[in-house]
Amino acid sequence: MEDKLQELKARLLEINDLHSVEALLGWDQSTYMPPGGGAARARQSALLSRLAHERLTDPALGRLLDDLRPYEESLPYDADDAALIRVARREFERAIKVPSAFVAQLSGHTAHMYQRWAEARPANDFGRVRDGLEKTLDLSRQLADYFQPYEHIADPLIDWADYGMKVSVIRPLFGELRHQLVPIVKAITDQPPADDACLRQYFPEKAQWDFAVDVIRRFGYDFDRGRLDKTHHPFMTKFSLGDCRITTRVDEHNLGENLFSVMHEAGHAMYEQGIRMDYEGTPLANGTSAGVHESQSRLWENIVGRSPGFWEYFYPQLQAVFPDQLGAVPQDTFYRAINKVERSLIRTAADEVTYNLHVMIRFDLELALLEGKLAVADLPEAWRARYQADLGIAPPDDKDGCMQDVHWYAGVIGGAFQGYTLGNILAAQFFATACAAHPEIPEEIRQGRFAVLHGWLRENIYQHGSKFTASELIERVTGGPLSIAPYIAYLREKYGALYNLA
Amino acid sequence: MEDKLQELKARLLEINDLHSVEALLGWDQSTYMPPGGGAARARQSALLSRLAHERLTDPALGRLLDDLRPYEESLPYDADDAALIRVARREFERAIKVPSAFVAQLSGHTAHMYQRWAEARPANDFGRVRDGLEKTLDLSRQLADYFQPYEHIADPLIDWADYGMKVSVIRPLFGELRHQLVPIVKAITDQPPADDACLRQYFPEKAQWDFAVDVIRRFGYDFDRGRLDKTHHPFMTKFSLGDCRITTRVDEHNLGENLFSVMHEAGHAMYEQGIRMDYEGTPLANGTSAGVHESQSRLWENIVGRSPGFWEYFYPQLQAVFPDQLGAVPQDTFYRAINKVERSLIRTAADEVTYNLHVMIRFDLELALLEGKLAVADLPEAWRARYQADLGIAPPDDKDGCMQDVHWYAGVIGGAFQGYTLGNILAAQFFATACAAHPEIPEEIRQGRFAVLHGWLRENIYQHGSKFTASELIERVTGGPLSIAPYIAYLREKYGALYNLA
Repeated sequence: MEDKLQELKARLLEINDLHSVEALLGWDQSTYMPPGGGAARARQSALLSRLAHERLTDPALGRLLDDLRPYEESLPYDADDAALIRVARREFERAIKVPSAFVAQLSGHTAHMYQRWAEARPANDFGRVRDGLEKTLDLSRQLADYFQPYEHIADPLIDWADYGMKVSVIRPLFGELRHQLVPIVKAITDQPPADDACLRQYFPEKAQWDFAVDVIRRFGYDFDRGRLDKTHHPFMTKFSLGDCRITTRVDEHNLGENLFSVMHEAGHAMYEQGIRMDYEGTPLANGTSAGVHESQSRLWENIVGRSPGFWEYFYPQLQAVFPDQLGAVPQDTFYRAINKVERSLIRTAADEVTYNLHVMIRFDLELALLEGKLAVADLPEAWRARYQADLGIAPPDDKDGCMQDVHWYAGVIGGAFQGYTLGNILAAQFFATACAAHPEIPEEIRQGRFAVLHGWLRENIYQHGSKFTASELIERVTGGPLSIAPYIAYLREKYGALYNLA
Repeated sequence: MEDKLQELKARLLEINDLHSVEALLGWDQSTYMPPGGGAARARQSALLSRLAHERLTDPALGRLLDDLRPYEESLPYDADDAALIRVARREFERAIKVPSAFVAQLSGHTAHMYQRWAEARPANDFGRVRDGLEKTLDLSRQLADYFQPYEHIADPLIDWADYGMKVSVIRPLFGELRHQLVPIVKAITDQPPADDACLRQYFPEKAQWDFAVDVIRRFGYDFDRGRLDKTHHPFMTKFSLGDCRITTRVDEHNLGENLFSVMHEAGHAMYEQGIRMDYEGTPLANGTSAGVHESQSRLWENIVGRSPGFWEYFYPQLQAVFPDQLGAVPQDTFYRAINKVERSLIRTAADEVTYNLHVMIRFDLELALLEGKLAVADLPEAWRARYQADLGIAPPDDKDGCMQDVHWYAGVIGGAFQGYTLGNILAAQFFATACAAHPEIPEEIRQGRFAVLHGWLRENIYQHGSKFTASELIERVTGGPLSIAPYIAYLREKYGALYNLA
């Protein structure tokens, strides 16, 4: 049995490495690749994707997993080997449903699309991506159809990112959340808006960069096992547990853009960096779901990075970096500026309160596209209409409308957005649990230290990688199921204080 | 037959892409990868190398090449399809001699070694690489032995880089060159040394960088199909004909280091960028040999970049960039400084006249290591002794001694150095031929323009890639075989004028 386990690990290692190399191709394409490299890069990504998929769908791997079933069943559920076999089988069974040729086609198409989007977005030219996006939609439907029967065509795509989740669960959850959020947003936006002019001054890139790097280093992001680069649309990517990289974009006239984006991506990366090193090269060496991943980015970005305690420590330092810009700006003004709630256009720049409304628009539009109720050609108008209806503001162009997010232009349509809101919910739930275990955490943050919080997250969440599913993990960590209550309580307390809400 | 040709191209494309992806892994490792990424990167490089080698040695590829032989023989020798089949067969026949497992072992070992060298060199710690280098020597011998019988154990390794070349040809060629060079070096170094203090001032990195970028852009290096990054030991690498990148290192207290290194690597890259785009993805889409490749880097770096005509145009511009440092330095002083001939320690920083003595030391030490006449443990001392004997100066440490060049620490021992001197010889031979065809080239250079020279090189050399072997190409371009006469004439004329030699 030991031989078979070793063979399984060797096969999984090769699959892992092919995926990791494909990730490097993607990172390079998004950071440093010159335009002339695009055509070959699409071809090379497709090749790596095909090679990985061929190995993941090799019938010999299926036989090996069958042979290992008695061993797996002889182990406790949470034994590492049992988890390895279980997660590998889940991935195998998912993969064999999709032909290798289709995977290569999809990968080649999305690489081309990303390149086209990167050019078309600054030019505000939806026409240049429309045909391609129609093809993406066709391919997304085709992908889902390999998983028939399903309750909803989006379910297989959602399951891919958030294992166990489906439309019939998310729709009521999001409905309840929206029901709670809408009156809060209304109560806040009925008041005069916060003044965030202090963030819109000129902040030279290098100083912004260095400050953000200092912050995430203190959070616990390990630069010996990662790095920070510039890109169009920030992301975290991983080539091994020893190399978890993040990216950002810097706006010299908007202090928040880079800073909070870096905290966000560092949260993702710290999750990956915190996975047990002996999981390296196995399917356990990944965050367990999009939602849990997003809980970490949002926890560090928002619950920590936009908290009053954090800025008690860091604001004097930020003022020292930008004395001309911020020297005369009181801490409370700055704090209100970075937590300004407004009806805005850009998801990644949205405040915590309205953010989920942005997500829900995308989630609903994804479903409408997949259901065939919305044509790609009508997407720009549908986007504008939903923004007008939900946020009371419509984008003047597609650049800041339906072309703002990379997701549909670098992957499939479906399953890409629900994780953001699940993450917001979970971030509050996990943080509340951490503070219950370690009531000193808020005070620690006020002193610019994060060791207890980071240690608790590593111990309870990060180290396990994909060993437990999201719902198992939530149950283990919090003692109960996913709940929106801590998130609503968090928003009510923070924004109640900021806006004197009843 | 058309089907078989298409199948051949598809197989070669996949091999090409696997090699290209491996090259990206190497580029990233040498430029941006954090230290924690090293272990997985070695594993991933080995995997890519193995996958490429398996495909290149697939017996089905051999059968395909056999099937295509009648078609090949029906074509003129210089038909593209004939060249494709011929070069593919040469690579196949070379590859099948080496087991895939050995290739993976070698690739994994050299990736580890590079990482260790990158740490050990700044620490001046030969002890940290010695064991690894012994292993490299064993592997190098083992690699050569797969090609028995051979005249000399280095021949197969030389052939790999410079097809058709061998020790019995190179030794007399280098002997004759040394015979001609030694009196020139002596005549020059008997005189008082040129004053190059003007180069040793403080030159901020960004200004150096921008000036060098401007120069190579004017040469014709295409930044839409390439880029420039920093590394330890500069190199050119290629991921497709649309993505040929170069790297450099900047010393803010040595103006020459970055500038001439960038010209050098741009010369390599312009060769690759100039290959016919319809060769993309085939074995024809590579420079034809190390020597011809080096001829292009040295032509642009030295024959153009260190010529008096070049600086007639560019020196006023350089003075404008560095007015405090160079405003009061006469052009002739600067010109003498960048062509200072001296008995020095560092090959890459050596002047044109002594450069080949550096190369010959390495070539001879490689042979001695391979022949078993020199032990790795004795390499530092042998290096010092030869520098003392040949150049009259011995390195004070191994950092600037036997650890200065990356080659033995990122590949095999053997075949790595002869190409540099072959390149110097060829650069002069090609440039003389270009000027015979276009006598206006020197005047064009004096005006800061390079279109005629670049056009001639593209037309006569670059576009063909590997279609012709080095010796075929030399014959086609110059009408005769490799000859040291133009190189000696070039050195005598240039340095005769500089040092008033008889």
